[in-house]
Amino acid sequence: MASDLRFLILVEGQFGPLSSKTANSCIRYTPDRVVAVIDSRFAGQTVHDVLGFGGAIPVVGTLADGLAAHPTALLIGVAPQGGRLPDDWRTTILGSIDAGLDVWSGLHTFLTHDAEFAEHARKRGVTLHDLRLPPDELPVAAGRVREVDATVVLTVGSDCNIGKMTAALQVRDGLARRGRAVRFAGTGQTGILIEGWGIAVDAVIADFIAGAAERLVLEAAHGADIVLVEGQGSLIHPGYSGVTLGLLHGSLPHALVLCTQPSRTTITNNPWITIPPIADVIAIHDALTRPLRHAPVIAVSLNTYDLSDRAARDAIARASDETGLPATDPVRYDPEPIVQAIDAFHAARTRNTSPRAAAIR
Amino acid sequence: MASDLRFLILVEGQFGPLSSKTANSCIRYTPDRVVAVIDSRFAGQTVHDVLGFGGAIPVVGTLADGLAAHPTALLIGVAPQGGRLPDDWRTTILGSIDAGLDVWSGLHTFLTHDAEFAEHARKRGVTLHDLRLPPDELPVAAGRVREVDATVVLTVGSDCNIGKMTAALQVRDGLARRGRAVRFAGTGQTGILIEGWGIAVDAVIADFIAGAAERLVLEAAHGADIVLVEGQGSLIHPGYSGVTLGLLHGSLPHALVLCTQPSRTTITNNPWITIPPIADVIAIHDALTRPLRHAPVIAVSLNTYDLSDRAARDAIARASDETGLPATDPVRYDPEPIVQAIDAFHAARTRNTSPRAAAIR
Repeated sequence: MASDLRFLILVEGQFGPLSSKTANSCIRYTPDRVVAVIDSRFAGQTVHDVLGFGGAIPVVGTLADGLAAHPTALLIGVAPQGGRLPDDWRTTILGSIDAGLDVWSGLHTFLTHDAEFAEHARKRGVTLHDLRLPPDELPVAAGRVREVDATVVLTVGSDCNIGKMTAALQVRDGLARRGRAVRFAGTGQTGILIEGWGIAVDAVIADFIAGAAERLVLEAAHGADIVLVEGQGSLIHPGYSGVTLGLLHGSLPHALVLCTQPSRTTITNNPWITIPPIADVIAIHDALTRPLRHAPVIAVSLNTYDLSDRAARDAIARASDETGLPATDPVRYDPEPIVQAIDAFHAARTRNTSPRAAAIR
Repeated sequence: MASDLRFLILVEGQFGPLSSKTANSCIRYTPDRVVAVIDSRFAGQTVHDVLGFGGAIPVVGTLADGLAAHPTALLIGVAPQGGRLPDDWRTTILGSIDAGLDVWSGLHTFLTHDAEFAEHARKRGVTLHDLRLPPDELPVAAGRVREVDATVVLTVGSDCNIGKMTAALQVRDGLARRGRAVRFAGTGQTGILIEGWGIAVDAVIADFIAGAAERLVLEAAHGADIVLVEGQGSLIHPGYSGVTLGLLHGSLPHALVLCTQPSRTTITNNPWITIPPIADVIAIHDALTRPLRHAPVIAVSLNTYDLSDRAARDAIARASDETGLPATDPVRYDPEPIVQAIDAFHAARTRNTSPRAAAIR
């Protein structure tokens, strides 16, 4: 990915801690690439004012004001449920193209398949990047990840949009500091944007979800000790569980990190589904990995952004007590408990697959 | 679907009891529509000679011989893993189009998206039917099936290609005879071909699997007492489990019929996965329906085509003993045990949702 990227992020009417995941993750992990954010409701404020992080990056009210910050590309900063493009954003996107900006998008509606966008981009000589556009030919998965030497760790969750990508990114540096060659495998538009490669497994044809995950892990494993696979959705999410299970069975992880939010009691947009206790969520994952290759949950990652410090620390202690596993909020506190769990698991697994151990098995 | 359909079925090199599922199901359920089958290996024999059912329908060796039977359409009779078109079939398909036949296909590679096929069809004035082509706009599922009054029954399986569509079709007539308004909801190319409508849930974009299933059941439920949803794949299939879970959570069945094959010990094309005992397979389904809406397995459908009569009857008795559930092979023997289980479940459920019971819940 070009290192001189300077994003103007479009989140008109949707900028906020929970409503603009793509924008927020780009701001958190690659702030040097963000020159301004468009949401007229917060024009004149800074990103920090709205999100509580992100520093002095300005929020502007119009495309013209955003262009004054000299961006090289427009980034669509949301991925709404279903992933389709808000109609009233077309004008801003066309204006950006005509102003000479590339456009990056993680929507299901591909910009490159839109005749008007494609024609404007061609005329102006700019590039449209569809982060979710899948590769042309994908296999049906068949357990090919079993041939991989690297330890594969997948983040899973009790709901969607709960911290699965964030947990993986937050522990990466800690594993690297311990001398592990670690690779992040992005499976959604935001992870792909941050990392510069990946496959959006929710955008492939249904028969090839696991095949896409399999290909991704095989690629990520080259030269890696540990592959951290970005999880998607939840096995109990009524809309996205198929993607979640395909990713689980295609990536064939050795171990799982479970991501939860203590204050969340029901599934996003589905108040009729009560999120079960952590132990039950773990049992569901055990039931689905055992027949293929058992992947134990080895740590719990909590999203406590909406709790007081005391309540957050209590929730972390309770999660650890209930499961007997290391637990932390890897954004708010030290990610080290999860780092240590993954590192120890990898060390034990590597010992167990030494030539002698392999001969015995 | 046009009632004057006369299919010539293309299965060159692949005709057989286990290798040509689309062809075989079309022959079993709509034999009046089939005029000939192309597989040069069996030219001169009858369909019954090859499959053990299907009567005197001739097998021919060439397209020219097939055209002599006066078909109105060519049907692609296979849906290989991954669903792509064998390259050497292009000539036969082009020849059929040029001879004035419509073409029906359940492949993932859409005939209508193939420039050469589309151009030939346009010139000759014939129609290309892609059974797997999904609707344009699908929702993300959110439990909308909860509003449906009909009893929704989904067939599930311990593997793919094990009898899920067949089980649903075999019990339909028995339920109708008991006075139930029953509707079959096709979810794969073969079910759609037989029934004339449906959505191929394995061919939609991954985020919309459950949404496709939801839309399908809402449509099928109009005026129905019982909706029989055709299952897909298996929750323990490494390639297709995502489709299976999306279908389970989108169709939100009230009850499940579990389909197994006693002689099958490992997953198709994946000998590294041992199929667990029936009770364990049931427990996996319980774990995944409980958080949304619990759907008990209420009967077991066995595929015993490769067993002796005695071995088949033993296997059925054993399955019933192990699970405490009614069991039968609904193709080989009387489907009545499964029919009775669904009928009784529907009756009990209808009693429980009487106004008084509803007020208590």
